[in-house]
Amino acid sequence: MSAIRDEVLAANKVYATQFGEKAKLAMPPGRRFAILTCMDARLDPAKYAGLSEGDAHVIRNAGGRASDDAIRSLVISYKLLGTREWFVIHHTDCGMETFTDEIMRGLLAKSLTTAAIDAHGWHDTGQGPGSTEGAFIDWLTIADQVESVCADIRRIRTHPLVPRAIPIHGYIYDVKTGQLVEVPEATRIGA
Amino acid sequence: MSAIRDEVLAANKVYATQFGEKAKLAMPPGRRFAILTCMDARLDPAKYAGLSEGDAHVIRNAGGRASDDAIRSLVISYKLLGTREWFVIHHTDCGMETFTDEIMRGLLAKSLTTAAIDAHGWHDTGQGPGSTEGAFIDWLTIADQVESVCADIRRIRTHPLVPRAIPIHGYIYDVKTGQLVEVPEATRIGA
Repeated sequence: MSAIRDEVLAANKVYATQFGEKAKLAMPPGRRFAILTCMDARLDPAKYAGLSEGDAHVIRNAGGRASDDAIRSLVISYKLLGTREWFVIHHTDCGMETFTDEIMRGLLAKSLTTAAIDAHGWHDTGQGPGSTEGAFIDWLTIADQVESVCADIRRIRTHPLVPRAIPIHGYIYDVKTGQLVEVPEATRIGA
Repeated sequence: MSAIRDEVLAANKVYATQFGEKAKLAMPPGRRFAILTCMDARLDPAKYAGLSEGDAHVIRNAGGRASDDAIRSLVISYKLLGTREWFVIHHTDCGMETFTDEIMRGLLAKSLTTAAIDAHGWHDTGQGPGSTEGAFIDWLTIADQVESVCADIRRIRTHPLVPRAIPIHGYIYDVKTGQLVEVPEATRIGA
């Protein structure tokens, strides 16, 4: 058995006990917007953007990047479920800034187990086996947050399945203050 | 200006004012696990699984599917940020059960604007232009939730970059009760 699983299920039991009116929520997001943001554990989009259950779609991946899969999700969000406005929100101190495709591929080729980072960068402490499969994945790393928010909004804005009328706002969440800081050049691209 | 943007920023201001000790959280998830779940607005994984900021990675897309991008995120979550256990959580009344690739491609070919659903299924009310680009996307629709959780865990379990030692648990979240219901056959595949 897993201690984490027991904790998750115990927390869920409490949540379900107080579920109340949430049973009546409809499938389409009530406030008609979607947020694309990072999977980072420090981010709680419902809390940092003031969402209640039923309000908005939340799409999350490593970096909050406009991957093919994020675009799949956004198009479904608009086309079938009626969202009319999107936010792309990256954040300070993102793990995606600590490595490159080359570093990740090298680490995975050496060992699949968890690596460590210090002042000299990433290094693998584990024993093999590793895998060369990392070479077939674009890890979508980030060199600069402002640039990544702009690049992602540009990609969404110019996608052939994304109507021109959807505004896309660009923000960086500051993990030291909890504040959303606008990236005006990104919002201009997404306007 | 956007009313939604004003509301999000107003809520964020309140959150940041009460940020306190969260400023000190480290990048790696403190409770060392990750959840892959759906973008559905009715789901709040932090609430339904009892997460505080800093606890766990949360990856979300349309359906909570084990897409290439979700696997990218999970591998980063384990390899670089030390999660040791994963949950795949789909849910009842999922939008991904209401259409097929053929339906979505047909809707998009007719018009890019929001479609409507009734007892006869999806239909497009908008005027064109449409786009044939929908044919190049696998929409990852769901015919049966138990099968989709099993298929996704099987895909993750057999991925060459995912070490055998990571347990992967399969659940379906019930949007009418707030409860997580285990999919034992999926958890067995992920064990």
